[in-house]
Amino acid sequence: MFEAYWRANGDSCTTVILGWEQMSYFASRKHFLWFVEQELENEIRQLHSLVGNAVTDGRFIVVGTGSTQLFQAALYAVSPRDGAQPASVVSAVPYYSSYPVLTDYLKSGIHKWAGDAANFHPADSSSSSSSYIELVTSPNNPDGSMKHAVVQGSGPVIYDLAYYWPHYTPITAAAEHDMMLFTVSKCTGHAGSRIGWAIVKDAQVAQNMAKFIELNTIGVSHDSQLRAAQILKSISGRLFHFGYSEMSRRWDLLQQAVKVSDRFSLPEFSPAFCAFFGQVTSPHPAFAWLQCNRDSDCKEVLKLGGVLSRSGVQFGVGPDYVRISMLDREGNFETFIARLSDMAAASLASTAASYQEQML
Amino acid sequence: MFEAYWRANGDSCTTVILGWEQMSYFASRKHFLWFVEQELENEIRQLHSLVGNAVTDGRFIVVGTGSTQLFQAALYAVSPRDGAQPASVVSAVPYYSSYPVLTDYLKSGIHKWAGDAANFHPADSSSSSSSYIELVTSPNNPDGSMKHAVVQGSGPVIYDLAYYWPHYTPITAAAEHDMMLFTVSKCTGHAGSRIGWAIVKDAQVAQNMAKFIELNTIGVSHDSQLRAAQILKSISGRLFHFGYSEMSRRWDLLQQAVKVSDRFSLPEFSPAFCAFFGQVTSPHPAFAWLQCNRDSDCKEVLKLGGVLSRSGVQFGVGPDYVRISMLDREGNFETFIARLSDMAAASLASTAASYQEQML
Repeated sequence: MFEAYWRANGDSCTTVILGWEQMSYFASRKHFLWFVEQELENEIRQLHSLVGNAVTDGRFIVVGTGSTQLFQAALYAVSPRDGAQPASVVSAVPYYSSYPVLTDYLKSGIHKWAGDAANFHPADSSSSSSSYIELVTSPNNPDGSMKHAVVQGSGPVIYDLAYYWPHYTPITAAAEHDMMLFTVSKCTGHAGSRIGWAIVKDAQVAQNMAKFIELNTIGVSHDSQLRAAQILKSISGRLFHFGYSEMSRRWDLLQQAVKVSDRFSLPEFSPAFCAFFGQVTSPHPAFAWLQCNRDSDCKEVLKLGGVLSRSGVQFGVGPDYVRISMLDREGNFETFIARLSDMAAASLASTAASYQEQML
Repeated sequence: MFEAYWRANGDSCTTVILGWEQMSYFASRKHFLWFVEQELENEIRQLHSLVGNAVTDGRFIVVGTGSTQLFQAALYAVSPRDGAQPASVVSAVPYYSSYPVLTDYLKSGIHKWAGDAANFHPADSSSSSSSYIELVTSPNNPDGSMKHAVVQGSGPVIYDLAYYWPHYTPITAAAEHDMMLFTVSKCTGHAGSRIGWAIVKDAQVAQNMAKFIELNTIGVSHDSQLRAAQILKSISGRLFHFGYSEMSRRWDLLQQAVKVSDRFSLPEFSPAFCAFFGQVTSPHPAFAWLQCNRDSDCKEVLKLGGVLSRSGVQFGVGPDYVRISMLDREGNFETFIARLSDMAAASLASTAASYQEQML
C-alpha cells in the first residue's frame, strides 16, 4: 500500500552505500548497544516526538532484525534464568497467531506458551517459583482493538505497538510502558529491510535484549539501519495523511461490500481525538477481522470465493472468524473487495431463494 | 583488513536503493526459499564456481542473517522434532567458542551442547532414541587446521567453511558435504551486512532451515542481500590475491615476533597445492592460535602486555592457549605485533636474568 507514496515522495531517501562503508560488526565500541547505529536511534526518537505516540526520554532504543526478533529478545530478556520451570507466556484472545509458535519452536526451557491471558491466574500455578509474561498488541492484531494487560499480577508485559500510528488509529496518548515494540514495516511499509526497535525502560532488560541479538544474529544489518534512518528522516506529516486517507478509503469500500447482506460482519470502532491530527479520527486497522454469521468455517467459505485468509482458530478463537490484510497492493485489494462483494450478494440471493422455497 | 582493498577497488560496487524498492518481505512467492534474492543466489553459485571451493550444482542456497543465524537454522533443521531427548551437539576441541552458548542459550529441548566430539560415542547414550549432531569448522576456528568429522556414527554433520577461501588456506578440492556454511564477512570483509549462506543437499533440510529463518526474523534484509550480490559480482581473482598477500605479510610479521624467544609458539602448517592459484600456497589462518609455553594463564599475560585475546578455556582446551584475530585494521594489527614482540623479548631478558641468578 505504501509503495505508491514512496514512488511519489521518495526522492529524498535514496540510499547509497559505497563498497568500503558499513563493513564492521560494530557501530560503537563504547556502549552495550554496540550494534545500534546512532543515526537510526536519533531518527527513531525524533519520529516519536513528532507523532507523540510513545515516550523515549530516558529510555533505551534497542534496534532489531524486525519486531519478530525483538519479540524473542524481549521474551529472553525477562524470562527467569534459574527458574525450575519456564515462564508462562500468555496473551488475551484473539492474540497474534505467531505468538504461540515463536514462543515454542525451540522447545525452550525458559519460556512456554500458555494461551489466553484472560484465563490465566498466576496463583493457579502448581509451583510457587513459576512466573509469567503477558503479551499485549495494541491496536490488536488481528482485530484492531486497543488492548491493555489483563492478568492480575506483577509480571512483565511486552507491548507490541506496531500499529500505533496515526494512519491506523487515533493517537490518544504517548505510550510509556516498560517494553514497547515498533517496526518500520508497519510504519512506512519497508518490510524488506527487517528493521524494528524496542523502547525499553530498564537498563538490564535492554542489555539482555542486546545479548540475545548478539547471540541470534551478531547485531543487525548496518545497510538496513542506514537505510531506515534515511527513510525515517524523510517522514513528515505527509506520510500519515496519505496513510490515513488511503486506509479510510479502503475501509469504506470494505464496509460497503459487507453491508449488502448479513453474511459477514466486522468489529465496530469508536472515533476518538487524535493528538497528532488535532481532530477526531476513526480507527482503520491494518487487518479486516471478519466474522461469518452463518457459515461455520469462514476460511473455507472465503477460499471458495477466491479470498485467502487466516482462520480465527490460529488466533485462539473460533473458525467463524478470519483475518485479511488491508495493506496489500491496490490491485490485490480491489480483487479482494470485488470477490467479497460477490460472496455477500450471493448470500442475499440464496436467502431470497430460501424464502421462496418456504412459501411454496 | 579488507577495507583497504575496497577503498581501492570498490567503485563498481556502490549500492543504490531507491525509496520504493525492496519493500516486500518476499523475493519470490513461488519457492519455499521465498526470502532469497535470485540475484544473490546466482552470484553465490558463480563465486564458488570461480574459486572451486564448494559444489553447488543440484543443491539449495539458503541465505541467512550471517552464518550465526544459519548455524542455528541448521541445528533446528536436523534436530529430531519428536525425540524424547534433545540431540547432543558435539565438536572436536579446540572448537569455536560460540558453539556451546549458541546451542544452549534458550535451553532448547531439541538440541543440547555435549562437548568434545573426540570423547563422544553415540553408543554411550542412555536412550536408544537419542541422537547427535557434529559440528566441523574447516579451516578450524580457532587453530586454522583442516578438520573432518570424527564421531563414529551416521548423524548429521554441519560444516562451517567460513574460512575455506584462497586467502586463508590452499583450495585442495571442491567441498561437497551435505550442509556447508559460508559468510560474506570472512570472504570479503563485509561483516556489517550480516549475510551468510548455506549450501544444502537435502530439500527437507533446506525447507526446515527456511522455516527457522521465517520464525526467527521473517527472512533476511533485502537491502543487504542486494548489496551482497553487487559485492560478490565484483569479486575477481584480484580480491584473493590481495587477501593472500596481505595475510602472508601479516603471518610473516607474527612469526618473526614469536620466534625471538621460546615464550610463545604457534601451530605449524603444511603448504599444499591450491587449485585456485594453480601453485603451492601456505595456510594463513584468520586467527593466531598462540600457546604460552611457560605461563599458565596466557590470556592474563597478554592482557598485561596490552593485547586482548580469548582464552583457550572457551575453546575447550587449557588456559595456556589464546586466540587473537589476524584480520583487524592495519593500525591495530601493527600495535598487536609490537606488543607481542616486546613480550617475547622481555621473556628473553628475564630468561637471561634468570640464568645470571643461577650463576650467582
